[in-house]
Amino acid sequence: MRLCRFAGGYGLIQGEDVIEITQHVPAIGEDIGDPLVRTLPHLRTLNAEALAKANRHRLADVKLLSPVRNPTKILAAPNNYRDHTAEMQNVDPVASTRMATMEEAGFFLKATSSLVGPSEGVVLRFPTRRTDHEVELVVVIGDVISQPVEAAQAARFIAGYSIGLDITLRGPEERSLRKSIDTYTVLGPSLVTPDEAGDVSKSRMRLSVNGALRQSALLSDMVFNVEEQIAYASRFYTLYPGDLIYTGTPAGVGPIRPGDVIHADISKLGEIDVYVR
Amino acid sequence: MRLCRFAGGYGLIQGEDVIEITQHVPAIGEDIGDPLVRTLPHLRTLNAEALAKANRHRLADVKLLSPVRNPTKILAAPNNYRDHTAEMQNVDPVASTRMATMEEAGFFLKATSSLVGPSEGVVLRFPTRRTDHEVELVVVIGDVISQPVEAAQAARFIAGYSIGLDITLRGPEERSLRKSIDTYTVLGPSLVTPDEAGDVSKSRMRLSVNGALRQSALLSDMVFNVEEQIAYASRFYTLYPGDLIYTGTPAGVGPIRPGDVIHADISKLGEIDVYVR
Repeated sequence: MRLCRFAGGYGLIQGEDVIEITQHVPAIGEDIGDPLVRTLPHLRTLNAEALAKANRHRLADVKLLSPVRNPTKILAAPNNYRDHTAEMQNVDPVASTRMATMEEAGFFLKATSSLVGPSEGVVLRFPTRRTDHEVELVVVIGDVISQPVEAAQAARFIAGYSIGLDITLRGPEERSLRKSIDTYTVLGPSLVTPDEAGDVSKSRMRLSVNGALRQSALLSDMVFNVEEQIAYASRFYTLYPGDLIYTGTPAGVGPIRPGDVIHADISKLGEIDVYVR
Repeated sequence: MRLCRFAGGYGLIQGEDVIEITQHVPAIGEDIGDPLVRTLPHLRTLNAEALAKANRHRLADVKLLSPVRNPTKILAAPNNYRDHTAEMQNVDPVASTRMATMEEAGFFLKATSSLVGPSEGVVLRFPTRRTDHEVELVVVIGDVISQPVEAAQAARFIAGYSIGLDITLRGPEERSLRKSIDTYTVLGPSLVTPDEAGDVSKSRMRLSVNGALRQSALLSDMVFNVEEQIAYASRFYTLYPGDLIYTGTPAGVGPIRPGDVIHADISKLGEIDVYVR
């Protein structure tokens, strides 16, 4: 399944259409975790008859929001592609003194209040300071993980995948602050379940700005793969349905400016266009 | 008002009694922000007659949970007491290379999934690694702050104050990871509104472990005061009702071990006893 959230509801993407499933997703309530992610088992049971009666929209016509609405936390892996680590040691003297592998540094957090969908765009908070794009594969956690799990057992906790932008203000502040500004965490276009995404390590991820290619990498070039990252996170804290792991960005990170259009795609996960203001 | 959350509901603390106000606090729903904080204006209108009919408990008998249940984010100020900065440069070579004033480093984030109340205790996740106590004044944000505010205007956004423990695993990992382990963010005993807390900068904050005093400071020794911290945070992101700011810890930080009992108090804000397991 390819599931999306848009201004007005939730939908199942089929080709160029969005089949509305809003009535099947509960409101936010006492139960912990994201409503869409928690209701995935139910959504799998919807039959063709139920879907045939549902409202339809054209995908091109809906304003895509973040498919996950309220993660309890957003984790992000630093320096998880070796080429990006090398690059940052050249261009950013502040960051380079702090550069450590994910094995040493682990995850940092991004504030959930920074999360937006592709249609909402990125609003530069400090236009005179350098602000960079980072494209990332995002893993959506599907269940409560309250005890450490081994990487070999981690796949069953994956609800799906999405494309993420980890927008980053450069400078001396804590990484978890510089990356947590409103709109600096983009997620979309949809949540793609593992059966549909296939083996994501074989996918290619690309980002271009105003049509010029800036980042391109195979996801197999990650230092720590998806399952190893889930296992690492589970050693530190409980993960909940809808928690997000931004799995790191490859080389090619560069500045964005108001008026830019960021295009990102990952094979089998779709594509997003994000405007910078 | 002194408001608490306990296993079973919400209460208004009067002396040694807890007057139950559970029915006045809405369930978690679509509205963003913590239910108790959002309902503070209504709670102010409860009259003596309504309270006289309410259930009563002895404060000593209830299991205190974190008064704030679901902040969208937990911010924490590094090195906001000069004596603590000096201390860390002596004892922690890893941290000392990264030590920066709050003006430079800003806030880091703690995961909301790490938040517990005093009765829940601290569970050491890595008992063989050094884990430290840090006692802090915590500011609870009372309203949406979507635009930068000046320090002089920040006081009106304060819902109240509480006592916090920022439990910290020492080591090379990102600060936002080491401080986000389950149970490593303690808040209690209650949310004390500004009218009752008075001028907190005149308060003394203390922490002892097994009866031995470890930390003691006047809150006026902060480098950045409460209002300046709110103003700083508002430059970076939107704050929501129930968001928490851990305002930094003074000198005396030290290790805790299973079996320890941490006692912390801040004048006018009460006291907490927290067991380490």
